[in-house]
Amino acid sequence: MNERNSNNLTWHDGYITREDRERLHAHKGAVVWFTGLSASGKSTIAQHLEKMLYKRGCSTYVFDGDNVRHGLCSDLGFTPEDRTENIRRIGEMVKLFVDAGIIALTAFISPYKSDRERIRALVGADRFFEVHVDCPVEVCASRDTKGIYEKAKAGTIKEFTGISAPYEPPQNADLVIHSDREDAVSAAKQVLALIEEKGIIVERCQVSTIDSLV
Amino acid sequence: MNERNSNNLTWHDGYITREDRERLHAHKGAVVWFTGLSASGKSTIAQHLEKMLYKRGCSTYVFDGDNVRHGLCSDLGFTPEDRTENIRRIGEMVKLFVDAGIIALTAFISPYKSDRERIRALVGADRFFEVHVDCPVEVCASRDTKGIYEKAKAGTIKEFTGISAPYEPPQNADLVIHSDREDAVSAAKQVLALIEEKGIIVERCQVSTIDSLV
Repeated sequence: MNERNSNNLTWHDGYITREDRERLHAHKGAVVWFTGLSASGKSTIAQHLEKMLYKRGCSTYVFDGDNVRHGLCSDLGFTPEDRTENIRRIGEMVKLFVDAGIIALTAFISPYKSDRERIRALVGADRFFEVHVDCPVEVCASRDTKGIYEKAKAGTIKEFTGISAPYEPPQNADLVIHSDREDAVSAAKQVLALIEEKGIIVERCQVSTIDSLV
Repeated sequence: MNERNSNNLTWHDGYITREDRERLHAHKGAVVWFTGLSASGKSTIAQHLEKMLYKRGCSTYVFDGDNVRHGLCSDLGFTPEDRTENIRRIGEMVKLFVDAGIIALTAFISPYKSDRERIRALVGADRFFEVHVDCPVEVCASRDTKGIYEKAKAGTIKEFTGISAPYEPPQNADLVIHSDREDAVSAAKQVLALIEEKGIIVERCQVSTIDSLV
């Protein structure tokens, strides 16, 4: 926190706590942090996982590099400093979602190890699950329907991760998905199994209600 | 959105929609935006309201000028530009909370009319309820236990709303609370009645479950 605004702030504890909200939702708040190259399949896996969690009655939200950049981070570009600030803001935002008792699924390239580690520390290691969606850059480029890899190779798009900007793969991801060899549904099932094992989903809540909805 | 990042973005629709999440929560997503001077009682009313909503089984979260400024907006101060950017980021964040089907209760001074109107437009007028917590500055100063009004009057704290920085009261607030004459519980009940009337709380969900929790 900078000097300018350090003199008149105090932290307020609300009357309703995270534990209360987690009891209401019948699961814990957590972040599943998908990291990997553009077109590696992060958003698709996150969306399949969200559907599976919804069927279990879980409160979720999918954050996406593209849609967050239209809003919260619309003032930021793709320089190293802007990428770090982008991930910092997202980290602070998802921390509040976790406090609200939500399972946040984030699908950002998030190329820098230090940025991801900062969020793990911010949210708490027991609530943060890093999933590396590992896919060779050639496969990502071949899948890319938007033609952005072509533009990156031609230099029309600058500072593009995997082509003209670095990607630092996680050394100790909670899970590695090889999305060139596994489909999105089977990948999402693996993540579901992980967060069950870690105790984020504490019970099958409201199954009868939800089954009638989906 | 600026020029730098406008060439490779598309908006992703997830598989699970806001409507799905609203069915799960059995209420709509919305923002109750409390605005007013420091120590006018915004956070206290928001916390009482959150407790009432929790007892109704609603998924909620209270955002507070102080706690957001430690995280998402820790790089911002209290200049006019920084105040506008502070409220812009909060607006973009609560928009995602609304999309997640949460009732977001925000307690920020938010002194500029144009900033608040921008958020109303961003979130949608049917999901945004502006509550003016109206309290004479002398009463706020007399209640202030942190001594910040004293410091503001002495000039130790600069650009302090109501003393050395402007506050633009809403002209068409959805509700005005005179917090010098009404207590926080009765104020919270008025807001609850407002959002019931506006259809945000669509049914009394899970009453039997929740009654056993609180």
